[in-house]
Parts: sequence; C-alpha cells; structure tokens
Amino acid sequence: MLFPEGVAIDGKTGEVTPSTSRYSKKLSDLRGFFHDPKALESKIAQEGDATVYEVIDYRHEESDLAFGTTIMWPGKVGEEYYLTRGHFHVRRECGEAYYTQSGAGLLLLESREGETRTVDMKPGVCTFIPPDWAHRSINTGPEKLIFTWFCATDAGHEYGEIQKRGMRKLVIDQDGKSVLADNPNYAG
Amino acid sequence: MLFPEGVAIDGKTGEVTPSTSRYSKKLSDLRGFFHDPKALESKIAQEGDATVYEVIDYRHEESDLAFGTTIMWPGKVGEEYYLTRGHFHVRRECGEAYYTQSGAGLLLLESREGETRTVDMKPGVCTFIPPDWAHRSINTGPEKLIFTWFCATDAGHEYGEIQKRGMRKLVIDQDGKSVLADNPNYAG
Repeated sequence: MLFPEGVAIDGKTGEVTPSTSRYSKKLSDLRGFFHDPKALESKIAQEGDATVYEVIDYRHEESDLAFGTTIMWPGKVGEEYYLTRGHFHVRRECGEAYYTQSGAGLLLLESREGETRTVDMKPGVCTFIPPDWAHRSINTGPEKLIFTWFCATDAGHEYGEIQKRGMRKLVIDQDGKSVLADNPNYAG
Repeated sequence: MLFPEGVAIDGKTGEVTPSTSRYSKKLSDLRGFFHDPKALESKIAQEGDATVYEVIDYRHEESDLAFGTTIMWPGKVGEEYYLTRGHFHVRRECGEAYYTQSGAGLLLLESREGETRTVDMKPGVCTFIPPDWAHRSINTGPEKLIFTWFCATDAGHEYGEIQKRGMRKLVIDQDGKSVLADNPNYAG
C-alpha cells in the first residue's frame, strides 16, 4: 500500500528528498543530438565529459501520477545551447507540466504534425505540454535551469524518433541572444 | 488541437494566468464541514460570510493532466482551522500532487480503510497523495496557504462521503499550536 509523503524539492539545487531514482547525461551521451558533432568532440577533448543534465524521479508504479526534477547545467556546444534529448510520450494521450523553479530556458516543442512552438521557461511558469507534442528543454541562461515535471507514471518516453531525425528547429546563441534557427541536419 | 502554453503561477497570490475556470467557497458554503456549527454561525453573524478558499483551474478536457492553484485564507471557526471540504477521487486509481508555494498548513489524509496521515505543507514541499486517499487541506498559519495541484483531468471529485460522515480527525488550535484531535462528530 502506498502512503502519503512530503517530498522536499530544492528549487536552487533541484534535489528531491526522498527520491526513487536518478540518472544523468553527459556530453558523450548526447552524441547525435547537437547539430555540430565536431564542436561536441572538440569540447569533450578540451574540457572533459561534463554533465549536461540530471533527472531525479519520485515515482511509484502503483500511482497514476509521477513527478521529479530536471537539473540542466548551463553551457553550449558550438553555438547551440545545452539541451535534453527530447521525446514524445509512448502513450500519445499523455501530456505533461513543467514547473520552472530557477534559471532561464526555452521549451522547444513539435507536434506530431510538425508544428513548432516554444515556451519561455522562467521561475513560476508552469508550462503546459499537450498530449503528443515532442518536447526538449534548453538552458539558454548562465545558471542552472531547474524545473519540476508532473506526468502520468506510465506515459513512457519515446526518444528514438527525435534521435533519428532531429527536431526541425535549433536554439542557438547569436550575439548573446537565444534565437530559433532551422536545423540543417533535420532528416524528417 | 491543443497548443503548448506558459502558465504563470504567482506563488504569493495564487493567481494563475491564463486560467480556465475558478470557484470559491465561503464560510456559509462550508456548513456541515466544521465540527462546531454554533461557532460557524456566530462567526458569520459577527464577521460576515468570508471567503475560506478559492480554486483556480488550468484544465483542458483533451489533456490527461490538469493543474491549478488553491488559495486558502487564514482563520478559524472556534478552535478549528479553516479547511477545504475534503474529497476522494471518483476514479479511485488517481493520485495527486500538491506543491506548496507559500504559507503553512497541514494536509489531512484518510485511506479508504480508515487510516489517517498528515503531511506538513510548507514552501517547496510537494505532497504525494496516493490513489484512494481522501485529502483535506488545512491552513494552520497566519498567512494565506497557496499550493499548486496536479492530477488527472478526469480524476473527479467525490465530496459526498466526507461531507456525510466527516473525517476521523480534526486539526485544532491548542494554545497556539496545531494539534490533531478525534472528531467527536465522526459518523463512519
């Protein structure tokens, strides 16, 4: 039987207490996701295989709803800001909510039909992600970007499609400002 | 078709922008929920029919997940702190998460089998409410208690059972401290 519990979420570090699991992704785990592979290899060679993001879960399979926190380090690969892999949900009827705790970023979304949208991520904004929109978080600021997500426990992550074809748009640094650009490698 | 959207949540006022609906409950709407009906009528007569709480929704029927904010005013009816009606979900497999933004309170929970639990509500704590636990929020502090909730859009609110029989426990002010007491009117 499941019992109620108070889960402390530190909005500055992203720590979740208690948590049920966690994983992190380093630069080398994100080969194929940044649009400039040479810049990625050069960065790893020069600066080491840094962590790009970490995900901390509070998840019980016996509950319909799970939540957790994603912590994204600031940084760029070439001109492209640090990003998450991006995913659809396996269960296409499942949406999600991202509540930004600290930092500044952009949520890049793509509908199944190929429409692109972005939502600014900033403290106090809860981003509504409708069902069947792929979503990728991008840290466009100088600090860690920390957000708490809420979704169906069994929504499932489908990373393959975005990994294979990319998203239609990129978010790049142009003279210190984040701008949306076409992805030259898009293979859809 | 649903589109992504950034929903601003003001952690100090509870305002949700944009929102899709809202309702509020005044003292007179909560007749039958406080354990001391005389204290309630006397309070309404002397101080007026004040608002006890307001709920602001961000809800789209086409999405599986809804969220919103509950704003609870501080106050007492006799020795009993301001409370929400308390509910089970109609769909018993649905849990919920309450992320406290500001203020201080207590979430009083009761399993279908009659077990009682409480979770402290304070800023940064995300309370995990497992499926099939009735839950009632109680503002035990001097400020507004504001929390953002996340649950399945079609979870449904079942208020009747708690309204009819009450909860097994009350949260009362005893010499300036909130304590859990047996509900003398419990009719289960």
